[in-house]
Amino acid sequence: MRILTAAHHAPSVGYSQPWNFILIRDRSSRLNIKESFSKERLKSVELLEKDKEKKRKYLDLKLEGILESNLNICVTYDHRRFGPYVIGRMTIKEAGIYSVCCAIQNLWLAARAENIGVGWVSIIDNKHLKRILNLPTNIKPIAYLCLGYVNKFEVQPDLQSQNWLNRLDLEKVINYEQWDDRNRPTEWEGFSQRLTGKKAYS
Amino acid sequence: MRILTAAHHAPSVGYSQPWNFILIRDRSSRLNIKESFSKERLKSVELLEKDKEKKRKYLDLKLEGILESNLNICVTYDHRRFGPYVIGRMTIKEAGIYSVCCAIQNLWLAARAENIGVGWVSIIDNKHLKRILNLPTNIKPIAYLCLGYVNKFEVQPDLQSQNWLNRLDLEKVINYEQWDDRNRPTEWEGFSQRLTGKKAYS
Repeated sequence: MRILTAAHHAPSVGYSQPWNFILIRDRSSRLNIKESFSKERLKSVELLEKDKEKKRKYLDLKLEGILESNLNICVTYDHRRFGPYVIGRMTIKEAGIYSVCCAIQNLWLAARAENIGVGWVSIIDNKHLKRILNLPTNIKPIAYLCLGYVNKFEVQPDLQSQNWLNRLDLEKVINYEQWDDRNRPTEWEGFSQRLTGKKAYS
Repeated sequence: MRILTAAHHAPSVGYSQPWNFILIRDRSSRLNIKESFSKERLKSVELLEKDKEKKRKYLDLKLEGILESNLNICVTYDHRRFGPYVIGRMTIKEAGIYSVCCAIQNLWLAARAENIGVGWVSIIDNKHLKRILNLPTNIKPIAYLCLGYVNKFEVQPDLQSQNWLNRLDLEKVINYEQWDDRNRPTEWEGFSQRLTGKKAYS
């Protein structure tokens, strides 16, 4: 409940709080959801086509903990909540979904602070999920999460330690003033030095 | 940079880290963005039609700090990053956008920990934003944020203290096992008591 309280205190567009948290312990639901995962995983690995090395790596990855975790949570979006007029959502329709994601990240950090691990399973067909969890038409599943006590927390993300991808340098994802400003304005000099202590863009 | 480091350490689908942070101090860009806000705000208030009370309330609300904040940040999504094959995004296409929102919430919390206030302005036309910030076609703006030192942090969200909406009871957004399970299974008894100390659903 502390974790869900943190999630529920996320900012939301027009204060619409458009989330629900479906807590799932039932084994038969989880078995059905695991089945959806397994199907989608195989479809997904097939898309790698002839890249045998990547296929092998993919199949070695731990991508879910549906059955063995203590609790599954499906986080959903209800576009009707306090609607149709929601401040800030009239211009950017997707803003309600963004709010749900803020709640999910709050949930994740709060869980971590309680030494509880979280995994987000996005290799699930949402049509299956809607049927299994009996979701009405206006309710959109955003995240399917597995929560549980873990033996240890890894220092690096799994996909990094298993050489799938590396973390980008932070400076590569910072832009100054505009997208393509390769001539960083002089007034920005030293901005990124403050953190690293080393000369930026050396 | 500490705040951006926190944002950059958000979880992301397939470790794709699909975000960029455009830092904006330039006054002429901000004036243009403010102009887009002002137009969209008027369009938005007109949608309230004959509800004069709500219109008056709406016009009293502080909905942006584009010009007076210390820094504006546009957070964007790049669907091409490490793509087209991104683990977990083959089944749920929107998962990349969800990752960007997780980064935004990390940014928000990290800023708050540094006593810096954040406001998310979603009353902006993204077509204008793309032009003003020179974003390529494949880059989608997700959030436009105003960051700055504030005189004080309010205890409640503005929309609550100004009687626009109230925070929902947490229990109203929790579902057990399925969407519409009004007969909460007996094994869930006491679950929500643990936090509040009062009898759940009394």
